[in-house]
Amino acid sequence: MAQKLNILMFSGEYDKALAALILANTAREMNIDVTMFFAFWGLMLVRDPEKMSLDDKTTYEKMFSMMTPKGPEELPLSKMNFAGIGKAMLLEMMGEENAPPLEAFLKGARKKGVKFYGCKLSMDVMGLKAEEMIPELEVVTAKTYLEDAINSNMQLFI
Amino acid sequence: MAQKLNILMFSGEYDKALAALILANTAREMNIDVTMFFAFWGLMLVRDPEKMSLDDKTTYEKMFSMMTPKGPEELPLSKMNFAGIGKAMLLEMMGEENAPPLEAFLKGARKKGVKFYGCKLSMDVMGLKAEEMIPELEVVTAKTYLEDAINSNMQLFI
Amino acid sequence: MAQKLNILMFSGEYDKALAALILANTAREMNIDVTMFFAFWGLMLVRDPEKMSLDDKTTYEKMFSMMTPKGPEELPLSKMNFAGIGKAMLLEMMGEENAPPLEAFLKGARKKGVKFYGCKLSMDVMGLKAEEMIPELEVVTAKTYLEDAINSNMQLFI
Repeated sequence: MAQKLNILMFSGEYDKALAALILANTAREMNIDVTMFFAFWGLMLVRDPEKMSLDDKTTYEKMFSMMTPKGPEELPLSKMNFAGIGKAMLLEMMGEENAPPLEAFLKGARKKGVKFYGCKLSMDVMGLKAEEMIPELEVVTAKTYLEDAINSNMQLFI
Repeated sequence: MAQKLNILMFSGEYDKALAALILANTAREMNIDVTMFFAFWGLMLVRDPEKMSLDDKTTYEKMFSMMTPKGPEELPLSKMNFAGIGKAMLLEMMGEENAPPLEAFLKGARKKGVKFYGCKLSMDVMGLKAEEMIPELEVVTAKTYLEDAINSNMQLFI
Repeated sequence: MAQKLNILMFSGEYDKALAALILANTAREMNIDVTMFFAFWGLMLVRDPEKMSLDDKTTYEKMFSMMTPKGPEELPLSKMNFAGIGKAMLLEMMGEENAPPLEAFLKGARKKGVKFYGCKLSMDVMGLKAEEMIPELEVVTAKTYLEDAINSNMQLFI
């Protein structure tokens, strides 16, 4: 039976999302099953930039929809001012080494069969609807996450 | 034998504490044993707001006691300015969805038999005394944490 | 067979590095095998402060080398302004309790046989060379990290 890796993606930061997706892609190449559970700010990573909707949302939910990152490339760096290193500089350095950016790693994970779970409670609180997210995302409860995670060989909270 | 979840609560942020306590409550409802080990800033979550004491503390320890959050509802958000979303707005949105706030989840975890460990070294450094914390908190060393964690089915560092 | 702990050190913050190294040292004293995989900002912790080189680096890599922390004692606190607590105050409080600072815990981990892995991709992007790091650091791919981690009893992302 295949080994299993489970990642709880809580953070909505560019560099942490990059780390999580590099691990997910590498694990799939090693035939390890991978589940990523997106909760809280991590949900920003799996919004579909083309599908934002303001229908049937409260005022707060509309503000939230408009003010938060819409998809991978809008995520901020975890250390905006870490020694003066900005996201532009990091991307430039990555370009020179031919490391593909976040969106490419996300596409890779979708193609390679990573299982995408979205946290129902977080989505309700944030007013995010399933149709605003990437199509692979299955909306589940914390119980479904825990059942998957506790039966995995390895769990990370990122 | 019951499955076991072990959470090392390092962060003292409202949203991360919420994620940790939702997982702890959900796991208990699934009959999974849960240990939460509070270290560093995570200890802010298990201070008893009614029991702050300044007796027998150094000047630094007194300053620290007064300047840091005293219990769950005083914790800051991990992304104070994440796209302009403040804690008030998040709480407002949670209220509209009837998601109970942090203090209710903490009470739930205490009632449901989550094991609460407090890191002795962190408490010594911060000048926090056992009698200033919630009564369920047992003060233990990193060794006790590691023994519990490595024999669990799942470990998270939050 | 010995139990195994695997830590992915992503963060470059003083307090998180302290937590990780206290766990690594304690685990070794309990005869638990320990691997630490340093990626992204975590690499700042295992730079050798005496061996910074600017040879064969691009302009960005040179800027990066000079502007980021060079070794353990230069790391910032994760909550620079957490209730006004600065790093100086934390170190002062630690001194009063005789808790050794970060550098001592790093030396302890090196002496006690913790396995040090450095992430090849992160080092390439940041322009860090093996000879600028502590001598124990072995440069490996994400695949090597995952093989080690998934076969460990416990994994933490810090």
